[in-house]
Amino acid sequence: MPSEFDIIETYFAPLAGKEGVGLKDDAAHYCPSPSKKVVLSKDMLVESIHFLPDTNAEDLAWKALAVNISDLVAKGAKPKGYLLGLGLPAMPTIDWLKSFAHGLDCAQTVFKCQLFGGDTVRTNKDLTFSVTVIGEADVDAPLRSGAKAGDHIYVSGSLGGACYGLKSFRKEIAKNADLEQTYLRPQPRMDLISLISNYASASADISDGLVADIGHIVDASSVGAHLKAEDIPVNELINTPNLEEILTWGDDYEIVFTVDPSKEEEMLSYHDRHCSTPIHKIGLVKNDQGVTIVGKDETILSYSKSGFNHF
Amino acid sequence: MPSEFDIIETYFAPLAGKEGVGLKDDAAHYCPSPSKKVVLSKDMLVESIHFLPDTNAEDLAWKALAVNISDLVAKGAKPKGYLLGLGLPAMPTIDWLKSFAHGLDCAQTVFKCQLFGGDTVRTNKDLTFSVTVIGEADVDAPLRSGAKAGDHIYVSGSLGGACYGLKSFRKEIAKNADLEQTYLRPQPRMDLISLISNYASASADISDGLVADIGHIVDASSVGAHLKAEDIPVNELINTPNLEEILTWGDDYEIVFTVDPSKEEEMLSYHDRHCSTPIHKIGLVKNDQGVTIVGKDETILSYSKSGFNHF
Repeated sequence: MPSEFDIIETYFAPLAGKEGVGLKDDAAHYCPSPSKKVVLSKDMLVESIHFLPDTNAEDLAWKALAVNISDLVAKGAKPKGYLLGLGLPAMPTIDWLKSFAHGLDCAQTVFKCQLFGGDTVRTNKDLTFSVTVIGEADVDAPLRSGAKAGDHIYVSGSLGGACYGLKSFRKEIAKNADLEQTYLRPQPRMDLISLISNYASASADISDGLVADIGHIVDASSVGAHLKAEDIPVNELINTPNLEEILTWGDDYEIVFTVDPSKEEEMLSYHDRHCSTPIHKIGLVKNDQGVTIVGKDETILSYSKSGFNHF
Repeated sequence: MPSEFDIIETYFAPLAGKEGVGLKDDAAHYCPSPSKKVVLSKDMLVESIHFLPDTNAEDLAWKALAVNISDLVAKGAKPKGYLLGLGLPAMPTIDWLKSFAHGLDCAQTVFKCQLFGGDTVRTNKDLTFSVTVIGEADVDAPLRSGAKAGDHIYVSGSLGGACYGLKSFRKEIAKNADLEQTYLRPQPRMDLISLISNYASASADISDGLVADIGHIVDASSVGAHLKAEDIPVNELINTPNLEEILTWGDDYEIVFTVDPSKEEEMLSYHDRHCSTPIHKIGLVKNDQGVTIVGKDETILSYSKSGFNHF
């Protein structure tokens, strides 16, 4: 049976960048690019809480990295590296390790980053991933707190795919393999990084649900968000979408951002030239507070919960 | 009952540095000091694996941060900040949260760093801490791989206190509150950071046991370590120390480092002037491999295990 040191040397060291020193040191040594701001984010994932038991190792590796990379995208930061904390309830099989390492390798190729280091430990029960990502942004990377009254609100891609993918796994809807894939393999919007960095006044990724995440932006910015329900892009694979569920359920990893209207035309032109992920204008920032969603007949929709909370 | 967002705002946001943006953003924004190398390290701690169940929250907070800071010290890097991953099997009590936050506050004051961000999640069973520390070092911070034949080997402080502190908790020896404290409250050797940075050719902290950790250095450096058993400093509070246990048991968080003999006199003079933690010469790097420990009568001591392995 391999030791934790064998695991690191055999499966993880080949994924390390020069910053990881072959994973043979206590720490990663990293020289940031001059004049860039370093952006750091950390998301933990726990079996049965953040992913289904028996999810295959390749999908786990993808998701553990993708949900973290999504935070960098939201800050307009280019991924550079990551530290992987891996908590294992027992020594995994060689097949699991190979598949997990292969998943990391594919993910870090797509996300253009490398393994800087980490820690592998035993747990009592919980299969746990704790990833810290390191990215680089221009100094004026958008915070959540930069939205101003009059800004327009945009969202990338479409919402609800992860929610209905999980429903498919749980047999709550007719099986739909494409939606399941959307749940298993979130796609951080790498092609939008420069657009976010150049044009967003505020930005966040949608991990807790659109209402919660635009809520975080307007709370931090001391303004209010007014969204038009019919303009919110819903995943086309969903047969009978429940908008409340879709807007209050996380795991979409799309980006919600605000743009000053004076920059909007330039932003849209930049988008046409450089980005493949669609973006949709869904609302307006106003001088009030909270999130207001207006339905087709001008009714105000209100939801009993606004997003995911662990407790 | 507080939500995870209440926990963050009430207990953790006051600990955040400016890089943490009040813990109201998806990510930390950090501008490294010019011409410094950023050093990153991550250690996870799991209840019953890395600490005793029912350890009080203040001691947990200290240990979770201290074992990570120790890795920065070993690289001659000054702590700047940390990201805290907190996995909770249930919502803790307000008293626990207050005590944990107070422990972090005390620890980050001593270690001169601030909270940059993190993630709070629910687990199924395991109370889990996953900390990533960020430090800054001069560009020539010592790796494990820099030891050369002829270098002298030094260790800081004394060894065995944590091992025998745990024995005291487990009632395997007569109760000794001071040794228990050594186990609960490891002391990263902050006063040695500049000495390590200026004079060490290779360096590591002792988390897996002296034999394992000097073993990591000599393996990475393609040399061998020859230690004199009688020169290895053992914690004076231990009544009948078992050297094998002490040298193959981790959790001491002292620093083992190598020094080129041409720099030794200057290093010792620097130590006299600037450092309070004692250092001890315990051996010599030679052109062979592995770790050789020589006893009083020139016998070669050999140990059945060299250090901690999780599996």
